Order: sequence, then structure tokens, then C-alpha cells
Amino acid sequence: RINADRLWDSLMEMAKIGPGVAGGNNRQTLTDEDAEGRRLFQKWCEEAGMTMAVDTMGNMFMTRPGTDPDALPVYVGSHLDTQPTGGKYDGVLGVLGGLELVRTMNDLGLKTRHPIVVTNWTNEEGTRYAPAMLASGVFAGVHTQDWAYDREDAEGKKFGDELKRIDWVGDEEVGARKDKMHAMFELHIEQGPILESEGKDIGVVTHGQGLSWTQVTVIGKDSHTGSTPMPMRKNAGLAMAKILELVDEIAWSHAPHAVGAAGHIDVYPNSRNVIPGKTVFTVDFRSPDLAVIKDMEDRLKAGGKTICDDMGLEVEFEKVGGFDPVEFDHGCVDAVRSAAERLGYSHRNIISGAGHDACWVNKVAPTAMIMCPCVDGLSHNEAEEISREWAKAGADVLFHAVVETAEI
Amino acid sequence: RINADRLWDSLMEMAKIGPGVAGGNNRQTLTDEDAEGRRLFQKWCEEAGMTMAVDTMGNMFMTRPGTDPDALPVYVGSHLDTQPTGGKYDGVLGVLGGLELVRTMNDLGLKTRHPIVVTNWTNEEGTRYAPAMLASGVFAGVHTQDWAYDREDAEGKKFGDELKRIDWVGDEEVGARKDKMHAMFELHIEQGPILESEGKDIGVVTHGQGLSWTQVTVIGKDSHTGSTPMPMRKNAGLAMAKILELVDEIAWSHAPHAVGAAGHIDVYPNSRNVIPGKTVFTVDFRSPDLAVIKDMEDRLKAGGKTICDDMGLEVEFEKVGGFDPVEFDHGCVDAVRSAAERLGYSHRNIISGAGHDACWVNKVAPTAMIMCPCVDGLSHNEAEEISREWAKAGADVLFHAVVETAEI
Ligand SMILES: NC(=O)NCCC(=O)O
Ligand SMILES: NC(=O)NCCC(=O)O
Repeated sequence: RINADRLWDSLMEMAKIGPGVAGGNNRQTLTDEDAEGRRLFQKWCEEAGMTMAVDTMGNMFMTRPGTDPDALPVYVGSHLDTQPTGGKYDGVLGVLGGLELVRTMNDLGLKTRHPIVVTNWTNEEGTRYAPAMLASGVFAGVHTQDWAYDREDAEGKKFGDELKRIDWVGDEEVGARKDKMHAMFELHIEQGPILESEGKDIGVVTHGQGLSWTQVTVIGKDSHTGSTPMPMRKNAGLAMAKILELVDEIAWSHAPHAVGAAGHIDVYPNSRNVIPGKTVFTVDFRSPDLAVIKDMEDRLKAGGKTICDDMGLEVEFEKVGGFDPVEFDHGCVDAVRSAAERLGYSHRNIISGAGHDACWVNKVAPTAMIMCPCVDGLSHNEAEEISREWAKAGADVLFHAVVETAEI
Repeated sequence: RINADRLWDSLMEMAKIGPGVAGGNNRQTLTDEDAEGRRLFQKWCEEAGMTMAVDTMGNMFMTRPGTDPDALPVYVGSHLDTQPTGGKYDGVLGVLGGLELVRTMNDLGLKTRHPIVVTNWTNEEGTRYAPAMLASGVFAGVHTQDWAYDREDAEGKKFGDELKRIDWVGDEEVGARKDKMHAMFELHIEQGPILESEGKDIGVVTHGQGLSWTQVTVIGKDSHTGSTPMPMRKNAGLAMAKILELVDEIAWSHAPHAVGAAGHIDVYPNSRNVIPGKTVFTVDFRSPDLAVIKDMEDRLKAGGKTICDDMGLEVEFEKVGGFDPVEFDHGCVDAVRSAAERLGYSHRNIISGAGHDACWVNKVAPTAMIMCPCVDGLSHNEAEEISREWAKAGADVLFHAVVETAEI
């Protein structure tokens, strides 16, 4: 079993970097805080005897050698970046859970045939730079590095420039090791309510639902809120409101097999007495069923166009992120389930509601995920919380699944 | 008649300060650009023989002396600040029209019994600091200066601190002269479509419609867009969308005697994969009828509360600006109408759709306004446009109304 106190202490130590305003974290990707979090993780890993490699996307690979020079590494990890008002566990638990299992192996003097590599993937959250899971996506060959480097944040700063600025561009070619992976495991909090409500310790993640991000731009006409008669208005804010209601309607029509909302909303020029001339917002649709995702995308475009046509406005739709539903590797999933069994933790199969780096890595290596509950299913909120016991159960299962796969 | 070319050249010269991105202006109140615009206006006025006084709200009073030491001044002016994506004429025409009439009087060697004071009122637009017409409101005793100094912009910078920073805090007590005003005239572009569509040169402004700004704060719960089931969501963005539709419905129910929209909309934390936990937006309702304004406010609060209650969200309403419908001074209005008659300009009575400094000054001195058309009724847009002929007609009428009132 892993050392739950040490794991917890490390989680709390990491949470001191980039504190939020309400007990959580704001350690967004490629900020100074991200750089500081990376350095702390590097230090801990090196103290645990691991050696670091960093690729050109800033992905960190901390290696504990195996005994067989020909055996491919088993990967374990997640991400250290957070939402602007994020929690202390989303991503971090998976990275520090990986570190903890190496520390535990050191304590026990355990050696494995396969090397173990603990990984921190860059920009999983996708808030500053869409899409989410950007660097694991480039690693897996889904996006090109050039395209990723050109992504811009809200202030127009490019991903490539910011990665350089925080000094975390590595010299290993991104994806160079993608054909040399034995397996990958990611531990993550559920970010939903199912495990807690059913009192299960462990979610054995069999699938991940797919995602579609459509950025909608509505073009109206800035004009005076007081002196422009109602029939002459081209109110891009009002058209947005109608589209947001449509998004909700579409998602409910497929519930419980789909969800939909817009988290990102910008209004221009954003002045109290100017009718919005432009709105830009991103619709997030998800479902475990690809056909449902496609249906939702189609209805958004058709319905959004009708709304804007009726109001005499222009509208554009741009897909800015997405991935198809994922089925994880049966062998890895079984390793997770049997580890939970062996350790006596209650468990159930679960579909991940969120996207994870594991979803992309699954394209290039046998991959599985382990979930632990979180309080009220709440995540992407500073109040995100888990119990020490849940963290321990998740990290124990991770430890066993990884060690079994890496072969003692 | 005034010198139309000189007026136009001054308008174009002023428009070089704080240029926008699409041919208009971004010279928001208390920015460095505002300070620069003020300095240029000061220089022009001093060249025309006027002397400057500045009050503690930064209002500028440029005086051309009269011949009778006991005669109270006739005021003329408007504002030099603009919207973030504003036009070159909104406000500026009224200030530089005042300057032009003094220049014309100098050319003609005209003296008046009453002094003439050309005024630039601080923060008319209200974008950076709500409410609009803030400094003329303090001048007229509607707000206190302390309250005004404490207003914060979106970055938390206070009005008082920014006024100091740009070095335009004067030493005259604000409002000190409010009981010593003979009259005030404000020339302004219509910002609506009526004059242009009817082919009238001049709007004789008899009334101003009232305004109500209600800031609405909806509190939901930040949570993950992917893993939060539809029934567990507390989507403050969706509630906002429903309220925005309600605002439109309410305004239409009183059309054409009312208008309504929200120009200011902020969503938190504004991340693509976080269900908005909070939205803050400002509803702008207007009508020439006070009872209609009250009805709209009541229906917004009741309807907004029902929407949020039904969704399990919290909502707060705060009135952040407003004024009652205004009836301008009959004597001043007649002076405007007879000046237009005398000069042979076509004219009609009109109700101002927008708020103006004249609306507050009307509380403390006999006041009237003159409007000239603008292309397509478009304002609060960088593409705001007027013809030289319209500017000339407006400034001619201003000249005659002021000189008649100030007595040669
Ligand atoms: N786990 C997580 O929150 N990932 C971010 C990508 C997503 O929105 O699902
Ligand atoms: N004239 C003008 O645009 N004033 C700003 C105040 C308002 O919104 O009416």
C-alpha cells in the first residue's frame, strides 16, 4: 500500500503554488505558477531517483529504470495545470499518485522489469489554449506541433512563445517515444457524482465520452441602447441568448446520454449603453455516442443559423476542439479491476465524463484510467474536494496496476 | 453663420487623439487619451481668448467674458470622452460647436452682455464608470462627489484616483456655480434615425427619455461541463440567457414607447469547460414615460427571480444608474426653435433617446438641446457619421440660440 500521508502532504504542498481566491488553485498552463509547479515536481522526482526528459511540447517524463534493458516503459501520470478557478486534485492527484508509487517502491526496495515513467502533460485543461489535452494530443499525433505553437490565449500570446518564456521547451522530439510504450495508467478524480452517491471507492474506467467544442461568433451591429428603435437593432447578445437556450434544449433531448453548455462567453464592446455588435462563445457538447455528438453539432448549426437569419445577423461556427468517444484497452482495464478486487476496494465500471490525456495516449499505447470519488461530484471549482481515504484507494489501485504491468 | 470648415477641421483634429480600430475613437474617460484631448481643447479655447476653470470632478469651464459684470453666464457644451468603440461626433460636436461659436463671435467682433462658458463634462459615457453623465450629475447635486470618486472600473481602479492620475482635478468646488447659470444649451447628434429619415436639419429637443440601469448578478455553481449531469447543473449562463430574452420581451411589450437590452455581460470563470458559476450583466431600459420604466424594472425583477428560483440559482438586482424622463425649459426650447426658423433650417420637435449632460443640468438651470441627424441613426459605433452640412446647421442654430440668450 502507498503512504497516504505522504501523498496528501505532497498534494497540499503543490496546492500552495498558484493559490486561487477560494481555497483552490489558479495554476494555468504556461504561467509562472505552472513553471514553479513543474520545478517542485522535478525536484521531488529527482529526490526519488528518477531522471528527467522534457519534450518540445513541455511534456515531462520522469523515469525510474527497469531491470530489463529491452522492456518498454509503463507510463503513469496526468497534468499539473489547473482551471482559473480550479481544484487541488484535478490532474494533480494522477501526477503525484505516480510519484507516490515510485516512492513506495523505493521504500519497499521493489524493482520492476519495465521502467516506470511518471508524466506531466502540458495544457490538459484547455482554458488558456484550446483545445484541452493539447500536448498529449500532439504527442499522440492528433495535432501538429506547429499548429499547437500557434494557439493563442485571450491576450493573443502564442502557446509556443509562452512555453519558451517559462523555459520549459525540452529537446526531446514530441512523440518520439510514442511507439515505445508498454502501457499507460492515469488516476483522476471522477469530477462527477456517481461513485460518491453509490459509495464506491474506485471507478474502473472502461470508456471516455466524446467531446465537441464549437466556437460560435455572432455578428450584429454596435449601436446605442437608448436611441436605437427596437426594430432597428441587431443585438448579438440577444441572438446568443437564444442559442444558449437551444444548446440546453438539444442536450436535454439526449439526456442522460449527453450534456451541453457554454462556459466561454465574450461580448463586444461590452459597454452598458452599446447593443452588443459581436459575441463569441464556445459550446461544449459531450456524449459517449459519436452519432449523438454529430446530431448535436448539426442541430446547433442549423438552429443557430435560423435564429440569426431571423434576426438579420451573421453567424459563424468553428470547431475548436473535440475527440471521439474512447474505449480503453481491455488488458489495462482488467489490471485496474483486479487490483481493486485484490485490495478489497469496492468498484464499478464507469464512463469518464471529462476528457483526459489518457484518451489521446490510448491511440498509441494500451491505456486505462482509475477514478476516485469527489465530494458532490464537484470539479472545475475551487471547492473541489476529496477525502484522504479516496486518494489512498485510488493511489493503491494505481500502484498495484502499474507494478503488475511493469512486472516485479 | 459659423465657419463650417473650421469646425470640421477641429472635429477631425480631435479625432486623431485616441483613435479606434475602425475609423472611430476609443478615448474613454480618465485615460491618457482623455487627458490629451482635454489639453488640445484647452489650447484652442485659450487661443480664442477664453480662460479656464476646472472643478474637482474635472469638469472644464472655458469662459468668454460678457459686458455686464452682473449678468450670469450662458453655458454651452457636452463631453469629449467616447465609448470604447465610439464615434467622432458623440459629445465632441457639442463641445467644439461651443468653441466654434466663440471663434465666430471673435471673427465678427461680437460682444454679449452675459458671459459664455464652453464646458466639457467628465465621464458622460459611463462605460468605464457607471453611471453615465456622472460628473454633470455630481455638479447638479444628484450624486455626491465621494460616491463618484469611489466608482470602480472593471480593473478596480477608482474614479477619484484616475482623475488624479491624469492630473485633471481642479480646485473649484464641484457645483459651486450651479445657482449662477443663466441657461445651458447642448448640441448633440441624434444617435437615432428620425431626423435623417424625415429629412430634417434640426431636432428641437423638448424632452429626454428616462433610463434605468439594473445590474443583475446570477450565482450558480462552477462545475465541469463534461462530467456534471444535466439535472445537477446550476448554469448561471443559461439563467442569464433566459433573462436576456425576458428583457427583450418586456421592452417589446411597450414598444415604440420603450427600449431594452443588455450591453454589458461578464461570465465567470469564463472557461470553455466550466459551467458558469456567476454572470454579471447590466440591463438598460428606457422610456419617455416614468410609469413604463417602473413597470419594466418590476417585471425584470419578478421574472428574473422566477427564472432563477426555478433553476435553483441565486439572483441579485442592483440599480447602478438612472434618471427620470426630462422636460426641457420652454424658454430655451423656444430659443432653439426660433433660431432654426430664422436660419431657414427644417426642424421638428424630438425626444432624446439617449441621456445627456443637459438632462442633469436642466435640474439647476434653464436648459435645452439641439440635435442634428446622423447617418442611419448609428451611434456608439466607430462608423458613426454625419455630414458637414448637418454639423453646420446644428452649430449655426446653437450659435444663434446662445447669442440671443446671452444678448448682444
Ligand atoms: N479532466 C478535465 O477536466 N479535463 C479537461 C478537458 C475536459 O474538458 O474534459
Ligand atoms: N449621449 C449618450 O450616448 N450618452 C450616454 C448615456 C446614455 O447611455 O444615454
